Amino acid sequence: MAGNTFGKLFTVTSFGESHGPALGCIVDGCPPGLELDASDLQHDLDRRKPGTSRFTTQRREADEVRILSGVFEGKTTGTSIGLLIENTDQRSKDYSNIQNTFRPAHADYTYNQKYGFRDYRGGGRSSARETAMRVAAGGIAKKYLRERYGIEIRGYLSQLGPIKAEQLDWSVVETNPFFCPDAAKVPEMEQFMAALNKRGDSIGARINVVASGVMPGLGEPVFDRLDADIASAMMGINAVKGVEIGAGFASVEQHGSEHRDLLTPEGFIGNNAGGVLGGISSGQDITVSIALKPTSSIRQPGATIDTSGNAMEMVTHGRHDPCVGIRATPIAEAMLALVLMDHALRHRAQNMDVQCDTPVLPPRAPEER
Amino acid sequence: MAGNTFGKLFTVTSFGESHGPALGCIVDGCPPGLELDASDLQHDLDRRKPGTSRFTTQRREADEVRILSGVFEGKTTGTSIGLLIENTDQRSKDYSNIQNTFRPAHADYTYNQKYGFRDYRGGGRSSARETAMRVAAGGIAKKYLRERYGIEIRGYLSQLGPIKAEQLDWSVVETNPFFCPDAAKVPEMEQFMAALNKRGDSIGARINVVASGVMPGLGEPVFDRLDADIASAMMGINAVKGVEIGAGFASVEQHGSEHRDLLTPEGFIGNNAGGVLGGISSGQDITVSIALKPTSSIRQPGATIDTSGNAMEMVTHGRHDPCVGIRATPIAEAMLALVLMDHALRHRAQNMDVQCDTPVLPPRAPEER
Amino acid sequence: MAGNTFGKLFTVTSFGESHGPALGCIVDGCPPGLELDASDLQHDLDRRKPGTSRFTTQRREADEVRILSGVFEGKTTGTSIGLLIENTDQRSKDYSNIQNTFRPAHADYTYNQKYGFRDYRGGGRSSARETAMRVAAGGIAKKYLRERYGIEIRGYLSQLGPIKAEQLDWSVVETNPFFCPDAAKVPEMEQFMAALNKRGDSIGARINVVASGVMPGLGEPVFDRLDADIASAMMGINAVKGVEIGAGFASVEQHGSEHRDLLTPEGFIGNNAGGVLGGISSGQDITVSIALKPTSSIRQPGATIDTSGNAMEMVTHGRHDPCVGIRATPIAEAMLALVLMDHALRHRAQNMDVQCDTPVLPPRAPEER
Amino acid sequence: MAGNTFGKLFTVTSFGESHGPALGCIVDGCPPGLELDASDLQHDLDRRKPGTSRFTTQRREADEVRILSGVFEGKTTGTSIGLLIENTDQRSKDYSNIQNTFRPAHADYTYNQKYGFRDYRGGGRSSARETAMRVAAGGIAKKYLRERYGIEIRGYLSQLGPIKAEQLDWSVVETNPFFCPDAAKVPEMEQFMAALNKRGDSIGARINVVASGVMPGLGEPVFDRLDADIASAMMGINAVKGVEIGAGFASVEQHGSEHRDLLTPEGFIGNNAGGVLGGISSGQDITVSIALKPTSSIRQPGATIDTSGNAMEMVTHGRHDPCVGIRATPIAEAMLALVLMDHALRHRAQNMDVQCDTPVLPPRAPEER
Repeated sequence: MAGNTFGKLFTVTSFGESHGPALGCIVDGCPPGLELDASDLQHDLDRRKPGTSRFTTQRREADEVRILSGVFEGKTTGTSIGLLIENTDQRSKDYSNIQNTFRPAHADYTYNQKYGFRDYRGGGRSSARETAMRVAAGGIAKKYLRERYGIEIRGYLSQLGPIKAEQLDWSVVETNPFFCPDAAKVPEMEQFMAALNKRGDSIGARINVVASGVMPGLGEPVFDRLDADIASAMMGINAVKGVEIGAGFASVEQHGSEHRDLLTPEGFIGNNAGGVLGGISSGQDITVSIALKPTSSIRQPGATIDTSGNAMEMVTHGRHDPCVGIRATPIAEAMLALVLMDHALRHRAQNMDVQCDTPVLPPRAPEER
Repeated sequence: MAGNTFGKLFTVTSFGESHGPALGCIVDGCPPGLELDASDLQHDLDRRKPGTSRFTTQRREADEVRILSGVFEGKTTGTSIGLLIENTDQRSKDYSNIQNTFRPAHADYTYNQKYGFRDYRGGGRSSARETAMRVAAGGIAKKYLRERYGIEIRGYLSQLGPIKAEQLDWSVVETNPFFCPDAAKVPEMEQFMAALNKRGDSIGARINVVASGVMPGLGEPVFDRLDADIASAMMGINAVKGVEIGAGFASVEQHGSEHRDLLTPEGFIGNNAGGVLGGISSGQDITVSIALKPTSSIRQPGATIDTSGNAMEMVTHGRHDPCVGIRATPIAEAMLALVLMDHALRHRAQNMDVQCDTPVLPPRAPEER
Repeated sequence: MAGNTFGKLFTVTSFGESHGPALGCIVDGCPPGLELDASDLQHDLDRRKPGTSRFTTQRREADEVRILSGVFEGKTTGTSIGLLIENTDQRSKDYSNIQNTFRPAHADYTYNQKYGFRDYRGGGRSSARETAMRVAAGGIAKKYLRERYGIEIRGYLSQLGPIKAEQLDWSVVETNPFFCPDAAKVPEMEQFMAALNKRGDSIGARINVVASGVMPGLGEPVFDRLDADIASAMMGINAVKGVEIGAGFASVEQHGSEHRDLLTPEGFIGNNAGGVLGGISSGQDITVSIALKPTSSIRQPGATIDTSGNAMEMVTHGRHDPCVGIRATPIAEAMLALVLMDHALRHRAQNMDVQCDTPVLPPRAPEER
Repeated sequence: MAGNTFGKLFTVTSFGESHGPALGCIVDGCPPGLELDASDLQHDLDRRKPGTSRFTTQRREADEVRILSGVFEGKTTGTSIGLLIENTDQRSKDYSNIQNTFRPAHADYTYNQKYGFRDYRGGGRSSARETAMRVAAGGIAKKYLRERYGIEIRGYLSQLGPIKAEQLDWSVVETNPFFCPDAAKVPEMEQFMAALNKRGDSIGARINVVASGVMPGLGEPVFDRLDADIASAMMGINAVKGVEIGAGFASVEQHGSEHRDLLTPEGFIGNNAGGVLGGISSGQDITVSIALKPTSSIRQPGATIDTSGNAMEMVTHGRHDPCVGIRATPIAEAMLALVLMDHALRHRAQNMDVQCDTPVLPPRAPEER
């Protein structure tokens, strides 16, 4: 209830501050019998971890996850899974600067108003460092969904500030530090980021995530709709300011005759729905797009106040991502995996015995393939 | 868990189908002592109800709400509040058309896949008729937030298909059937809708909602962030495909130096944050924008399949809103009220004793007012 | 969260006061496809309803339940089920007596302290009248458990004040107003109650409930144990002061060699466990016993205070059950059904794919049958 | 939902197996500003820990708890608190005995049926070792309740097999390994246990827990009653088979004129209610009594089956408590603290503004003191 748990049937409860001894989480609700090893989770942790390119923060963290419980003889037991990542690079430094001042566009002011004080070291609990545990937990969901249901969840950066990817080549995504699916745009992005760093500024980004192979029927029809839960999961990622499913904001100017995805025995024509109709998965690809704001920590000075309410000027030094969107792709994938996992379990609780006379449509009609 | 409950501390659990005998809900968690009468809820129900202009469905429903419990001698008792609205205009008609066929872009196909069969009369539980109960329940939250905290929640239609409101004049919003805040655009919208009706098509829309007077500190920092819960509430409204907080998708192209709202003792400069920093309210206006897809029920024929999977052509007759966005403003307001109410209660559970040395900033810096 | 919802996957949310217009509840999470009609619920409602013998309150309520949603063409649809019972016998009377005074051993004083005031008419929300909705909702669970899993839930009164049933003959239970399974004790109970009524006093009782045919595996191992959830369900019935599973308090004086139920290929020997081991059902009968305190409303005068804190003497008139235990059997059955239903759904969410090499033991070893 | 979380507003989510690397939990919902140090939790952990007398298991565990997050500069921050205890005495041994056999009265058989297999080392997750985390988490609740509300929670062993404590002298409780409050009975208990050990048998026990200084108003009136939540918390402790509040099972034979606690301006007369009326605390002492079954692991051979269903004979060797009740006192106190903490937070969420004209009664009337 105090906001450190995600999910209802497949839950992740996390703890840990940026500069505390460790981050951890408990994953509860994983069915027994899944083969699981820390290395299954390490791959996505490595994709997210800082310090792997010159375009991300230079903080060095191994982000090595340990499984402390819930796995026996290589398989999940059905009981709670404890995960732990120790913080290794908690550089001791002088925090007097941010201790008594609120960094603009950060959670500093709101934490102080909510709690009366805050762990100011590196943002404490509000640091994006916390998302490491989401990626670790999401890795369990990803593996289960893949092995049990054949669901694949993948993401990419579709826009970096003004630069838009114009090709979606999945084979390119993992070959560059931006998760950009358009090889031609990578050099442009590199130059853009270099110029940005020079100016001490930051930039926003857009990430797309796609789940393929999702069976129809996931999601509840009124309040816990699949799209509502996806929106919550995505907007809950640090720095996200907007979420779209399917056609998203383009729907505003669409006519019904244009927006609706017609049904044929060979599949749906089009996917303006983004794979969700009436809050329930249709079997088409689930397509999600999110907007990430530019990093708030920049080297350009800006006005702020101190904890007593006096006017100040502030410059944020330290190791920060100039574009938080760059490392956000694995986080968005993890969150989508957690939502789908939760709904997969909920679905079978209630609908395990359902027999439907209508055949399941192929995910896409021929003209789209 | 089966998706008919919204909220954690202030909860709404609802039931009812489009063509069943009644809709109802139970509001639980309302503090005792709030003066409450059915008339307090009727105002917003009347704003939402069908048949009030020629631009909405011609179904006639009085939507009169009865309070069945939880209020004694004019005040809430602190126990659960039962609300009931009887369906009066359930025109008996021939449903054989939609009984065995899936209307494109509707929940028909997904309901069948999830449940094996469905109440096909008027969409059953997937009908937007269900949102009447959200508006009724939201009315309780709205009243409490206003009286206890001085929070005001208001919405308007900012775009109807291609037509954008360019002025925000709150006094205009309630004077036209579109909730459009720009008087100059109303005739244009009327003409647009008339032409649309003639073609038997529908159109999307954008709604903005604003909460003013929100105290800082609402929202949890990691998973139950205020913005995440707002995103869930909004994406969970029928036909919504996108949600933005503050600058929303414009953040993608913003620089950090542009996006960040600087702090001054006189208030924040700008509101790109939309009133939420690190998942927690900052005291600025909370600004939300949502995209609603065009109504799926249109008179233009379209391809679909029947419940056995055979190809069909379908035309949707009946009484439908050509733009679901038109009646969505009170629904979006209600959902925002429910989220804020829930977090107001959560906040005081945990932070009731908090003393913060930092003064609360005014909602806006002088240059903005 | 404000305490009007029971269950996690199969939930009942209820509303209604003793003397309000109606009682109602929403049952959420019922799988689709269950044949359901109001008459399925009426049988247990009739067993619970007041005024059926001279040993219960003379309030006359038809307790006719209506199903307002969630059932279509005779089958549950998988969406929320709205149930409503109108109050018909709300005798208008003078409440000035209890309005300003706290009836001893009632919830009057605690409601006032919690909420600042209370609906004093007939106890308002604290009236046992509210349990009608539990019985109605439990009826859905009972039917599902029986049809889908072959689980039978039955209860009986095992003790009325000093009189203990010494025989368990299930065929006798429904033939007397006490739900007593020992025909020889019924006349004794009748005489006891007649004498009690004459003195204007009340008496406690003990109810036993048994679930047969429960598959092994229901219940979570640490916090949501099956026995813990049963304890909560039972202690949450008005007037219950004690709960036992299996050997219960007799365990205190047992040795391990005596308490442990040995396992044989033909089944367990003994059932001190009451069908639950490590919080999880074993496949044996689940046996529960509860203590109900004597009714607090008696005609004998007693000291109390008024709402200003002054000493008073009070006599409770009106229509009251001299032994609340008499009508509690169907309530206890309903609560046990709700718990088992919830865990049946939870179990398949997580353990649907589990294959166990060990054969399921018969519920009882031969020497016990 | 998979049963490793306790509480709603103040939650404990735990992980860890008897013979895994560590046990841990996350406490969420602790208000900010509580002074907290690991030493605050160590006292109760030491009271619970094994190997401190010859009447408990000889496993040696330091049970040293580390606080990994949620505390900054000596005070809780309001974010999640991560706690960790490493297992140090995981004696490597041959488990082939219990790997393929079900120990009678243990969770072995039910775990296998539920999950298909189990971590058989020392009982895995079903081991009472897991309760260490409950005690640690409960320590936070205890401290908050004491400092913020003046609530004291204390427990004692009231019966060990046939030996009943006849005096309640709180000063004696912590001076003997049984938590027995009657000094005269301690030698008798020592002799009893010595004889029991010789025979290789075990024995049941009864524990009483009392919370003093609880304000009236805690608990919800219908489903989340304070007594229902206490019953759940207590029945959820390993080996508990019965729970009583106040007069408990003695209520069965009581008359209303005897059971009801009369109210006087000087306080309630008697406490048959055990401090709870209508599910809500009355301000009197909350009195709870629980029955613990005898340890299932005894040296006397007994019939069982192996995992293939074949008949076997089994003897349990190893380090086991001959009376699990002996170490259960701090566990029961911790669980009661968790329940009260949860309800204290829930109460202020909903009833923070309540003004009650009726003065709060003193906990006990003069004749009782």
